[in-house]
Amino acid sequence: MVVAVDAMGGDNAPAVEVQGAVAAARRWGVSIILVGDRERVEACLAQETTSGLDIRIQHASEVIGMKDSASDAVRKKKDSSVRVAFDLVRDGEAHAVVSAGNSGATLAVGMFRLKRIRGIDRPAIATIMPNMVDQTVVLDVGGTVDCKPAHLEQFALMGEIYAKSVLGKTQPRIGILSNGEEDSKGNDLTRQAHQLLKGSDLNYLGFVEGRDLFNGKVDVVVCDGFVGNIVLKVSEGLAEAISSILRREIGSRFLAKIGYLLCKPAFAAFKKRIDYAEYGGAPLLGIQGTGMICHGGSASRAIMNAIGLARESVAQRVNDRLIEHLHMGADDTPADEKG
Amino acid sequence: MVVAVDAMGGDNAPAVEVQGAVAAARRWGVSIILVGDRERVEACLAQETTSGLDIRIQHASEVIGMKDSASDAVRKKKDSSVRVAFDLVRDGEAHAVVSAGNSGATLAVGMFRLKRIRGIDRPAIATIMPNMVDQTVVLDVGGTVDCKPAHLEQFALMGEIYAKSVLGKTQPRIGILSNGEEDSKGNDLTRQAHQLLKGSDLNYLGFVEGRDLFNGKVDVVVCDGFVGNIVLKVSEGLAEAISSILRREIGSRFLAKIGYLLCKPAFAAFKKRIDYAEYGGAPLLGIQGTGMICHGGSASRAIMNAIGLARESVAQRVNDRLIEHLHMGADDTPADEKG
Repeated sequence: MVVAVDAMGGDNAPAVEVQGAVAAARRWGVSIILVGDRERVEACLAQETTSGLDIRIQHASEVIGMKDSASDAVRKKKDSSVRVAFDLVRDGEAHAVVSAGNSGATLAVGMFRLKRIRGIDRPAIATIMPNMVDQTVVLDVGGTVDCKPAHLEQFALMGEIYAKSVLGKTQPRIGILSNGEEDSKGNDLTRQAHQLLKGSDLNYLGFVEGRDLFNGKVDVVVCDGFVGNIVLKVSEGLAEAISSILRREIGSRFLAKIGYLLCKPAFAAFKKRIDYAEYGGAPLLGIQGTGMICHGGSASRAIMNAIGLARESVAQRVNDRLIEHLHMGADDTPADEKG
Repeated sequence: MVVAVDAMGGDNAPAVEVQGAVAAARRWGVSIILVGDRERVEACLAQETTSGLDIRIQHASEVIGMKDSASDAVRKKKDSSVRVAFDLVRDGEAHAVVSAGNSGATLAVGMFRLKRIRGIDRPAIATIMPNMVDQTVVLDVGGTVDCKPAHLEQFALMGEIYAKSVLGKTQPRIGILSNGEEDSKGNDLTRQAHQLLKGSDLNYLGFVEGRDLFNGKVDVVVCDGFVGNIVLKVSEGLAEAISSILRREIGSRFLAKIGYLLCKPAFAAFKKRIDYAEYGGAPLLGIQGTGMICHGGSASRAIMNAIGLARESVAQRVNDRLIEHLHMGADDTPADEKG
């Protein structure tokens, strides 16, 4: 298994990418191609112990910045690290790409270089969120902002296959994120998608609400990329705010400080539960290849875990299963005409 | 100041409504009209100490249930508690309505009985959320699900006036909730609203992201009622999940339990910060009168605080200020024609 890591993408590139890649290579025995400025990557790699690990560097002269538009990323920077990484997958030299760069650009480059899977009109970025029971797959969290009903139906299918393959759910329960559970709720988009999914062979439970992301009621939550991105960032922002307010309240009380020290292992276990770095990356679904998108601010542990998740996706044949499912289907009408 | 309380609305009606109303009457000296089944309300009221308080009962024979549709609430149940309550405001016998009933129905009945403010095409439900600095007004959280750009512009104006009047902000900073800060982000709706707000005289900062709800970057966050409702319920669900996971982690460790006891005052202060009951109700904006919508599951403290917020809204003349602002404006084009 070979993973191409965009070494130049994140806010702290290439140091954290190199550290995360080395950790992943040691932990899972994966082969790594670090893609980026050879000199800078080599300098970081020299700081690490890499004996016995299969890590090589593929030079790329350009970097996509956080301010570059997706179309510039596709059209102008032809030797960008993320593009070279996807080309390694296209050419059969790597099985997956992991990038902590500009996620819109990563998505566009991934789609442009690897092409969409037939039957999927728009790609989606999925994410795994912790809930009170285990985990929920949420998609789309930012791939496709303006969606048609058929796109949500396709996201549901991709979410099902991802939850089966990577979370080991046998028959994932699927819901569409809405403003209430009743059939009369929803907006124009979700009401139409609701009808499509009711008629599908998926294990569709109907509309779910915001709180159902965290109570384990469903395994897959489907929404458009605009709503999903907001939900993701609201969740991260609130988790940060809660921990900051709690720290402040504890910090201003002497006995509470002692109490905090005694609680620390519990806090650490808790943080691990809700920490996005534990889940590493968000898979880019719907393209002919495996791509993991990480936070720009990822630490090396998040990069390592994203490489682990990429490895798992490839091993579980997520894309193959999706393609098999789509081409087994009797319905050959392009989904765009249905929506 | 007279507040009409829908005594039959919530999940634990009429007991919590009566308790909350008595507490509010004692705390702020407001007069209360409890609207609902006279016998049941009287029975609850008999359990309370009410000497010296101005509390009376207005009988209403029907109740809108959580399953009743908004149109049934408006057309069929003509003697429902929430309708009688709004009629008290329409007839000048009360200044505001507080209800923990079916929020869609409350909104529809409020709009039908009190009518919209001229210049506001769609009502919005606003909510006050705690952030790391102070508070953020978020609207719409469920009033109008499918919005046009002009509706979001009107929500921004209502949010500004609410933040000025009730939170005491002199020049509230306003943002549209989006999937990124750059002008190129947003969906079709928010990109158009973004242009409208850029050309307005509001203190518009541009697109904000999910995490900006909690970091105090803006005072008013504008979104459509579909997105806002999801955001609200995601926040509530996550806060619950975090506290449940934390309790579980602490509960399984002996030293952490002792630590927890020492931390307890800090936890209590923290809970008070993030507890929606502290904020009581969500104002229904855009109608010719003051209405506060509470959670169906509200405890008496939430009802009390909602009555306090209603009192504050009336005292601060939120609606009058809105009407003055709208009719001062030079632009008389109906907003629907602009969007």
